[in-house]
Amino acid sequence: MVTFSFTVTHRDGGARRGVLTTPHGVVDTPVFMPVGTQGTVKGMTPRDLEDVGAAIILGNTYHLSLRPGDERIARHGGLHAFMGWSRPLLTDSGGYQVFSLASRRTVDEQGVRFRSHLDGSPHELTPERAVDIQARLGSDIAMVLDECPALPATEAALAASVALTARWAARSRARFLELRAGAVSGVTVTNHGQAQFGIVQGGTSPDLRARSVEHTLAIGFEGYAIGGLSVGEPIDQMYAVVQETAGRLPAASPRYLMGAGTPEDLVECVARGIDMFDCVLPTRNARNGQLFTSLGRLNIKNAKYAEDESPVDPACRCYTCTHHSRAYLRHLYQAGEMTAGALNTLHNLTFYLDTMQRIREAIQLGTFEHFRQEFVRSVSRLSLDS
Amino acid sequence: MVTFSFTVTHRDGGARRGVLTTPHGVVDTPVFMPVGTQGTVKGMTPRDLEDVGAAIILGNTYHLSLRPGDERIARHGGLHAFMGWSRPLLTDSGGYQVFSLASRRTVDEQGVRFRSHLDGSPHELTPERAVDIQARLGSDIAMVLDECPALPATEAALAASVALTARWAARSRARFLELRAGAVSGVTVTNHGQAQFGIVQGGTSPDLRARSVEHTLAIGFEGYAIGGLSVGEPIDQMYAVVQETAGRLPAASPRYLMGAGTPEDLVECVARGIDMFDCVLPTRNARNGQLFTSLGRLNIKNAKYAEDESPVDPACRCYTCTHHSRAYLRHLYQAGEMTAGALNTLHNLTFYLDTMQRIREAIQLGTFEHFRQEFVRSVSRLSLDS
Repeated sequence: MVTFSFTVTHRDGGARRGVLTTPHGVVDTPVFMPVGTQGTVKGMTPRDLEDVGAAIILGNTYHLSLRPGDERIARHGGLHAFMGWSRPLLTDSGGYQVFSLASRRTVDEQGVRFRSHLDGSPHELTPERAVDIQARLGSDIAMVLDECPALPATEAALAASVALTARWAARSRARFLELRAGAVSGVTVTNHGQAQFGIVQGGTSPDLRARSVEHTLAIGFEGYAIGGLSVGEPIDQMYAVVQETAGRLPAASPRYLMGAGTPEDLVECVARGIDMFDCVLPTRNARNGQLFTSLGRLNIKNAKYAEDESPVDPACRCYTCTHHSRAYLRHLYQAGEMTAGALNTLHNLTFYLDTMQRIREAIQLGTFEHFRQEFVRSVSRLSLDS
Repeated sequence: MVTFSFTVTHRDGGARRGVLTTPHGVVDTPVFMPVGTQGTVKGMTPRDLEDVGAAIILGNTYHLSLRPGDERIARHGGLHAFMGWSRPLLTDSGGYQVFSLASRRTVDEQGVRFRSHLDGSPHELTPERAVDIQARLGSDIAMVLDECPALPATEAALAASVALTARWAARSRARFLELRAGAVSGVTVTNHGQAQFGIVQGGTSPDLRARSVEHTLAIGFEGYAIGGLSVGEPIDQMYAVVQETAGRLPAASPRYLMGAGTPEDLVECVARGIDMFDCVLPTRNARNGQLFTSLGRLNIKNAKYAEDESPVDPACRCYTCTHHSRAYLRHLYQAGEMTAGALNTLHNLTFYLDTMQRIREAIQLGTFEHFRQEFVRSVSRLSLDS
């Protein structure tokens, strides 16, 4: 059994470069994890993902537990074997999706009851069940179940939520350690080297964030995530919370900012000490025709690209940019061809992953602050369409 | 400029193995051409097509002339450059799609007027315009415009249709030769080595087929297609017409059976002297979950595959079969993931193209009749689902 470990190899200001070792291989950080909700990154085969340089991807516990079911995946040997992905995998706890997708949710001390968005069937997700599901999926990194309160909420409601999340985190860790010790029957563990990350909540309140960090560190996990951000709060507030919270987390542990973000968010949050990211933005926007480039964003639907023989991004090494023109991609999009989604996704993921590679190199060279300023100046929310 | 040529290298009964030389490379025959209607084989990138072994693909004149437009594609350097496909391409004349997709069609001596299925805009397709469009697309093989009469039709109506098709074929050839001679201004020719095939019509009437062959040979083309079959007639009747018609076509020219067919059709029509095939069956059925295998067909939606860890076809070399289980493919299909369409298409095209490869090898070895009997016995319309 490979033990999970994390080593920071270089520092540059608040940014760190490091190496995450997992049972399915090594991941250089800071890293971006493409989202593979239902056992596939939409439109990508595993070889496509390897081609664009994905070192670790994310699977969604909520979706996979409903369909095809975590027990079925366990019988297949776990999610790696089921989807044919041999590199590291992280699974979320299902909490975020229960709170955003399922209907008729009721939360109490025990957990959350809800109805499936697929067929309305009733389900319950508890901290223990989220651990068990992820043990069956066999991801390399499992996340604890946290409560995601509806916003806006009163300070008192947020405080209660943070407290509940802390009690759930303790139960999650207890269950995880019982499973690791082989003390639970009836749960097939498909990856005995799985690590578990805790999640810091607390909205945009510095006090609640500090309290949540304290709770989470007191339990102790292999890594720490910052949840509940990138949900519509002002960007400066998000960066401030990331800075404040990351600064309270142990330097020796990986720090994962959940659900973020734009290319600028990646750079700005690396600057604030984040090591891991996931977001649907590059993949979802690709399917909607929005492409990220080294010169800004472009929407391939725009009529100005109808005769444009240049690649999406002349600076990009991806298959799409080295083989196809903007005009062709616009045509595929307009014609509703699924190849459009695949080619656009190949590009956006390459842009994200190459950006992370450039970030890692800059940190190693001690030029990250220069890189950051250049990047934000050239990429920052510019549109090439007008 | 590479001259188009065709050489039969081996014969085995009625079957022939040969080599087609085109401006974009050499194609071993008998060959199956995947259909890339709108400038892409749905869900496949050019590298996917190369990976499955596609030597030549088909593009649709009707669709491409409406969107993105043949003049736009010509400005891009032709369809090869536009779609990033460097191997040979065949384009149809647009006739079949006008008769099956467009609305408010009126046919007269001049050509066919119709309204676009995209936006209802009025268009006219004449034999000359079909030649011009394909000159702009720059395919390696262009097809003449033929009339596709609505069936059932009286013998008199079919005879009139065959006669009209013959007059259109003569006009098509004249226009093609004028373009080749550089005698037409206003048409950008993007492939100066393009060949043109005539089409034999005549439904299931041996007399009309014989007459149509006579007309078409009298004009003279680089190759000859058999059109108007695989449209619902009994299979034995289709095979009989293919046998009869192929026997009347010159031995030294390539013979193309348009729009067919099932794996059994390929084998049975190779036995009757056909060299080239195209059909949407492997790609369309893949997207609908129907997979062709060496043991018969299977529908991946079937609940019996939910826990099936075996590959779609244990005998298949494709990426899908060497990396994924039936259970995973069923999950992707049930979840509506576009990756399902891509992986299923990779498999079905590989099955079709590998079948053609086995056919070519058997012809070369003189064992085609044995191969045919074994193939039809093992594959023929069997379903693995029940």
